[in-house]
Parts: sequence; C-alpha cells; structure tokens
Amino acid sequence: MSLNSIFQYFVPKDKKFFPLFEQAGANLIVMAKALKESVYITDLSKRAELNKKIEDLEHKGDDITHQIHLELGKNFITPFDREDIHSLASSLDDVADFIQGASNRMELYKVQTPSQAMKEIADLILEATEHVAKALNELRDLKNIRNITDSCVRINSVENKADYIFDKAVSELFEYEKDAITLIKTKEVLSAMEDATDKCEDVANVLESILVKNA
Amino acid sequence: MSLNSIFQYFVPKDKKFFPLFEQAGANLIVMAKALKESVYITDLSKRAELNKKIEDLEHKGDDITHQIHLELGKNFITPFDREDIHSLASSLDDVADFIQGASNRMELYKVQTPSQAMKEIADLILEATEHVAKALNELRDLKNIRNITDSCVRINSVENKADYIFDKAVSELFEYEKDAITLIKTKEVLSAMEDATDKCEDVANVLESILVKNA
Amino acid sequence: MSLNSIFQYFVPKDKKFFPLFEQAGANLIVMAKALKESVYITDLSKRAELNKKIEDLEHKGDDITHQIHLELGKNFITPFDREDIHSLASSLDDVADFIQGASNRMELYKVQTPSQAMKEIADLILEATEHVAKALNELRDLKNIRNITDSCVRINSVENKADYIFDKAVSELFEYEKDAITLIKTKEVLSAMEDATDKCEDVANVLESILVKNA
Repeated sequence: MSLNSIFQYFVPKDKKFFPLFEQAGANLIVMAKALKESVYITDLSKRAELNKKIEDLEHKGDDITHQIHLELGKNFITPFDREDIHSLASSLDDVADFIQGASNRMELYKVQTPSQAMKEIADLILEATEHVAKALNELRDLKNIRNITDSCVRINSVENKADYIFDKAVSELFEYEKDAITLIKTKEVLSAMEDATDKCEDVANVLESILVKNA
Repeated sequence: MSLNSIFQYFVPKDKKFFPLFEQAGANLIVMAKALKESVYITDLSKRAELNKKIEDLEHKGDDITHQIHLELGKNFITPFDREDIHSLASSLDDVADFIQGASNRMELYKVQTPSQAMKEIADLILEATEHVAKALNELRDLKNIRNITDSCVRINSVENKADYIFDKAVSELFEYEKDAITLIKTKEVLSAMEDATDKCEDVANVLESILVKNA
Repeated sequence: MSLNSIFQYFVPKDKKFFPLFEQAGANLIVMAKALKESVYITDLSKRAELNKKIEDLEHKGDDITHQIHLELGKNFITPFDREDIHSLASSLDDVADFIQGASNRMELYKVQTPSQAMKEIADLILEATEHVAKALNELRDLKNIRNITDSCVRINSVENKADYIFDKAVSELFEYEKDAITLIKTKEVLSAMEDATDKCEDVANVLESILVKNA
C-alpha cells in the first residue's frame, strides 16, 4: 500500500491539524498586513498601536502552535508524518516571530521614517504569507498538489527578491550612512524583515517535503 | 494500554537519563549564580575568574549533553520519546550557551559597570534555572505532574519579565546612548541574557509536551 | 540482531545517500578555498567574482541537500537513522550558509583589507571542511570508524582554535577600534566565519552520534 493511499484514507477524517494550519496561515496574513501598514506611516502613536496588535497576533499564533503540539501528543495517527507536522508548525511560528521582531524593533529603536527597502520587503512579506496561506488551505485536499507546488515556487521567488533588496540596502547603508546608530537601527529592522521571508521559504521547503512523501 | 502505563513501567528502571538531566539542571543553577555574581561586581580580574569558571561549567554541560546522546544511541527503550529527550538536552545546552555567551561578551567587550537591566535579567536567569532544575528533578516521578506544570508556568512568567526589561533597556539605549560602541556592547550583553531566559522557556515547552504525551 | 549487523547489510547497497554526502563535503572544500583566496587578496573586483562563485556553490549545496531530502522521502530503508541523515544534511547546509554569509558580508560591507584574524579563521575553515569531507568519505565503509573519530577530534580542535582567535580579535576590536562602523563590519565578518567552524563542529557531533549507534 502506498503512503499516498494511506494518506487519502486519513485526510478526509482529519479535523484537528488542517483547521489549525489554516488558522496559522490566516493569522500570518493579518500580521503581515499590519506590518505593511506600519512601515507606510510615520505616525508613531498609530505605529505603536499596530505593534501592540502584531504582538497580540503573535501570541495568538503561539496558541495555535501550542494546540498543534497538544494534538500531536494526543493523536497517534496524523495526516502526515509527525516530524513534518512539527516542522511545519515551527516554521510558521518562526515567520510570526520575525514579523513581530521587525515591528518591535521599529518601536524600540523609534524608527521615524521607514526606508524604501523596508516598504518593499514588507510588501514581499505580505505576498509570501498569502502564498503560504494558500498552500496551507490546499493541504487538506492533496489532489491539488500542483497548486501547492506553485505556491512554493512563488514563495521562493519572493524570498529571492527580498534577499536582493536586503543586500542592496545594506550595501548602500555601509556606503552612505555615516551615523553608526542609525545604521544599526536600519540594518536590524531590515534583517528581521528579511528573516521573515527566509522563514516563509522554510515553510515552502517543509511543504515540498510533505508532497514528496505523499505524492 | 495507555502511554502512561508504559511510562510508569519504565520510569522506575531508568537509571540513565534522569540523573543526567538532574545534573544538567544543577549545573545551570551554578552557572546562573556565577553570572549573577559577575554582574554585581565591578572588579574586572574577579569577573575574569568567574568567566573562566562559567566556561568550565559550560564544558561540563557539554559533557552531560554528550552522555545523554551516547545513552540515546545505546538504549532502545527510553523513559519518554527519543525526540523529546533530544530536544530537552538541546534546550538545556542552549541555556548554558547563552549564559556563557553573556559572560564572555562582558569579558571580551571589557564591560566595566554592568547596567541595572543586566542585574535584573541576571536575577531572572537564576530564578528561571531554579525552576528548570526543580522541574527536571520531578521528571523521575511523574505523579507530581502538577509540580512540573507549576514550574513551567513560573518559567514563562520569568521570561515575560525578562522580555519586558530587555525591551525597555534597549529602547532607552537607543534614546539616550550617543556612543555607538557602548550601545553595541550593552545591547549584545543584554541580548545574550534575554536569549538565556528564552531558552529556559523552550525547556518549559519541551517539558509540557512530555507531560501531554505521558499524562 | 545488533544495529550494526543491519547496518553492514544495507551499507553496500546504498547508492543514494553516500554519494550525495560526498558531493556535499567536496563542495564545502571548494567553497572554503574560494573564501580563503578572497580574504588573502585586496582586489575588490576579483573578490566580487569569488563571492559570485561562492554564491553559486552555495546554490549547488542547496540542490544536494534538496536531493537528500527527496531520497529520504522516497526510501523507506536508509543506511542510518532518518533523523541523523536529516541532521547531517542540515548541518552541512549550515556550514555552506555561513561560508557564503562571510563572503557576502565582505562584499556588502566593502571590506577592503581583511584582517589577520580573518585570514587565520579562513585557513581554519578550510582545514575543518577538509576533515569534514574526509569523514564523509569514510562513512560508506564503517569499518574505518577510527578514521572518522579522528576527523571529528580534529574538527573540534580546529573549532577551538577559531574560537580563540575570534575572541581575541573581538576583544582587541573593542579596545582599539574607535570607528563604530568599521567595528561592526569587522565583527560581523569574523562572526560569520567563526559560525562556519561552529557548524563544522555540529557536523562532527552528528557523525559521532551516528558512530555510537552503529558501532
């Protein structure tokens, strides 16, 4: 019996993991939208509100991760490998951590006017989380393997773009920014943002590995 | 047969893993005490001695982790899931690494007078490691699940406090510290300290996941 | 039946994993050689070429890791524990990431003249990757356990040396470097380099854990 047939057999019954992964994906989109809003404004008190909102959403994400772990503890049979469920939950958690980290650094460092690179990477984070959520919504029905693969390819492409923008921005920073403290602030916010897209790529890698095993 | 009954059956026989985890916990307390002593003094030669002591303790911790891995290799039957033993050992190792990292940065950066926030977080690291050690000592006898859960709740609360102190200190640093090199030094020592409490929280998460599976 | 006898039985048949690990090891040596060449020159355009080459090699390494994951998905029987194959592939990937990270930071930060410490650590990275590759080549034939253990001991010794050089260099940097931006640049390049040797040590740890289980 192929793994796939086992998989097909259990998928329709799973009421535990898929809804949780879908919630995690939806939560990341809301976080990424708040981050994007935050870098496009210069009103510090509004940004502080958004930071608080992102922090609350990050806690919500933690709760979802926690529930996935609880379900792993309670269920002997899972829709795909336990280690993959664990890796998928962890990588989604990491995306949330870095989105919140980027927002929190802007707050702590009192960044007044986010740079152009920050805006561009925030756009890309939102794009990446949308593809992540889309892929997670397709997981339930593995017949659409093509759609998941397609989302993974797009996530990789978004990460490459973010990488390129980050490198260019850091290079310019070291060339033109003479104030070391401003340089540190900008570099660290950009770095957390770029890490968020890296973690979306990790999600895509886990998803691809799930597809390979169950296709 | 419930997982718990299997567990109860093997627990009394395990002479390998529990003593090692108890040693790892005790070692973390000694490390945290040395770190606390170190941030409360300004005598650089005494601090250098403490740093050497912490380094030796970190090596001792590495040896304990190594022994846990050796036992995992040799024993087919373990008191709880192999992956949980692995994660628990790794997270304890990480706590030691960051305590040593904080101490080493103070040494390398020649920090003369540790800040108030460093003292407060060092206090919290000691508190967290005490709860970690207490929980590890209770592992042997899973009848006291309540005690372990209680320690985990306290570790989480300590981590939240450390997080708050860290954020406030970094925010003030970017507001008032005009010397970039001093800012880097202070921020990086605080950051290693805060990471140490984060890793205690990771220990608590692994412990909770062990409880869920075996309760 | 001991694990070892199972192991001996399957090893001669494995045509999938060993060649991939050998490729990964060989790739790390080429990367380390390019990094070493890069820190010994001051010609920025030649260094940019080497950075591009290292980036391409890092992608090649990613492809090898990806193939290992694909094989893990397709093969139920593996020459040693699935989790160890996974850990070994990840730690090799991490070595490549930090070699590329060090090279990329030199490029982004426009480091003109690499420091003496950078040269020394680059030498050590090459030495470490050579031991890593040697150990990976011996994996196929576990009769030479002694050779693998020997390589692991040497990797640990190289990592200790790199650690010592890094600590000394950072300490001197904070003592003598008055320009914060130069300090950041130098520290971050050194830090990525030192991390590369740390990750070689992680490879050695995984190898030792494989030996323990299969000896």
